[in-house]
Amino acid sequence: MKKIRIGIAGYGNLGKGVELALAQNEDMQLVGVFTRRDPASLRLLTPGAKAFAIDDAAAMQDAIDVMILCGGSATDLPAQGPAFARLFNTIDSFDTHAKIPEYFASIDEAAREGGHLSVISVGWDPGLFSLNRLYAGCVLPQGRDYTFWGSGVSQGHSDAIRRIEGVLDARQYTVPVDSAVEAARSGSNPELTTRQKHTRVCYVALKEGADAAKVEREIVTMPNYFADYDTTVHFISKEELQRDHSGLPHGGFVIRTGVTGQGGCHTQRIEYSLKLDSNPEFTASVLVAYARAAFKLARENQTGARTVLDIPPAYLSPLDGAQLRKSLL
Amino acid sequence: MKKIRIGIAGYGNLGKGVELALAQNEDMQLVGVFTRRDPASLRLLTPGAKAFAIDDAAAMQDAIDVMILCGGSATDLPAQGPAFARLFNTIDSFDTHAKIPEYFASIDEAAREGGHLSVISVGWDPGLFSLNRLYAGCVLPQGRDYTFWGSGVSQGHSDAIRRIEGVLDARQYTVPVDSAVEAARSGSNPELTTRQKHTRVCYVALKEGADAAKVEREIVTMPNYFADYDTTVHFISKEELQRDHSGLPHGGFVIRTGVTGQGGCHTQRIEYSLKLDSNPEFTASVLVAYARAAFKLARENQTGARTVLDIPPAYLSPLDGAQLRKSLL
Repeated sequence: MKKIRIGIAGYGNLGKGVELALAQNEDMQLVGVFTRRDPASLRLLTPGAKAFAIDDAAAMQDAIDVMILCGGSATDLPAQGPAFARLFNTIDSFDTHAKIPEYFASIDEAAREGGHLSVISVGWDPGLFSLNRLYAGCVLPQGRDYTFWGSGVSQGHSDAIRRIEGVLDARQYTVPVDSAVEAARSGSNPELTTRQKHTRVCYVALKEGADAAKVEREIVTMPNYFADYDTTVHFISKEELQRDHSGLPHGGFVIRTGVTGQGGCHTQRIEYSLKLDSNPEFTASVLVAYARAAFKLARENQTGARTVLDIPPAYLSPLDGAQLRKSLL
Repeated sequence: MKKIRIGIAGYGNLGKGVELALAQNEDMQLVGVFTRRDPASLRLLTPGAKAFAIDDAAAMQDAIDVMILCGGSATDLPAQGPAFARLFNTIDSFDTHAKIPEYFASIDEAAREGGHLSVISVGWDPGLFSLNRLYAGCVLPQGRDYTFWGSGVSQGHSDAIRRIEGVLDARQYTVPVDSAVEAARSGSNPELTTRQKHTRVCYVALKEGADAAKVEREIVTMPNYFADYDTTVHFISKEELQRDHSGLPHGGFVIRTGVTGQGGCHTQRIEYSLKLDSNPEFTASVLVAYARAAFKLARENQTGARTVLDIPPAYLSPLDGAQLRKSLL
């Protein structure tokens, strides 16, 4: 069987995760990694794969079936996404929820112009969690859903702490409040405020001579990031931070309860949860599954932008319909 | 907006559940219920809906967009399914896992001949559980999944007990073993036997003068149904059975753990679970969501058989793509 030829644009945690995920999928093959760094500085793990300058990607159109974009949503993807969608079938993990409609439109236009197929906002939220909100909401229209994130490391919040004067390094965990999760499961449809749903726990290593009380105050009062949450700050040594908090675990829950029957007499609950040792590697695994779907859709001459909500589930699988019906249904 | 016009074939627990579910979906309208009983004997809940003899369905082709088949998998659907698929777009909950490929082929042929679209094996297993096995398996190819059912009433097993001499009435619960669920979650990929995964708990009301010890022995040694399980039998009064065990709760778990990263260093877990007060009403709610999808697919002139694995998730929703991207992604 001819393998699906994959390119990776961007070689940070996510790009490396994609490389590792590709090795688990026999029908796929990594052709190359495209980087803004000096290609010679990259040490790829995949035999036969090469590193290229990102500006040389356009010359590789015939060699790559799907390009997986591993840049960030803040600055990389808004520019890279449409540029690549003109040249390649693409997958990305654009996750700025509020800007998805606008991003979708720009990718859709570029992909149609280029005759390509792009799946945007792939991962777990947006992504698998979105799918579960959709399925659960359609099955239980008279109901309510709750999304909880964590326990897990928020890189954005960790970065925000690192920018405070006196902070050497930091790691922030978002932690769902057990009692709020239980309330969501109960079917009582509670109104839960931001503060009631999650707490934030910070591990901070200080620079020598830094004022711990001042740093703590700056963290817990930081608007948008921490002010709306109950935040706990633990000061630990740089060595402890390195030893105990170097992973990138994450996860969360999508819980929907609804009622059915006469007068809504029966409560029904659907729950989806993830417990991830490595957030970037899991997100990468989702991207790779959707790269297969993009390849199949493009083979049918479909073009334009799609999201996970548009993709028939079977398109994610290397098995055909008959095999899936026999083994999974 | 013109409503999607729905027919229900069969008016048992599932058919009644579909009627109740339709009332929760504003874009749908129940036209009629088709029954093998005397139509005049049915008391429908829906204003304006009528009961018809099932043999009169063929005359109603122009009045119904989707027919939801609510018969059983053992004897009703193998005959009814293809017959209706020739005449209508259909949805059914065919759940004899081993016979799905054969059933799919017969529905596919009939639906294509009739120019209709049929979605088979809709519900939660097969159905939502199948979807979750598919998504989780594609995202974590190096992993293993476990499906647990319950706690919940198995009607087939309850019926099997009722056929034993001396039994007045009975209710059987399938109960997942907590330690097995925990082992599945652990990521240790345990081999779990049938006996290790579920226990069976039976509540039995005896006829006067029946031999309890003999009934219990017949239950726990019954091949296929109970012999491979640890089975507990509780003898209770007819009144207690009625009072405490008249509901049809069910549920279960699909758990997949897998590894990612170099040498599989990170464990990742995906879990989907249902906790249902009413199994037939929930199954009915899934059927109704897929009736909407069948309607949309048929409007695109698609024909033949489909399963939940083939249907783009967005087709289940009354919202359009832009609304879904904005609100759910």
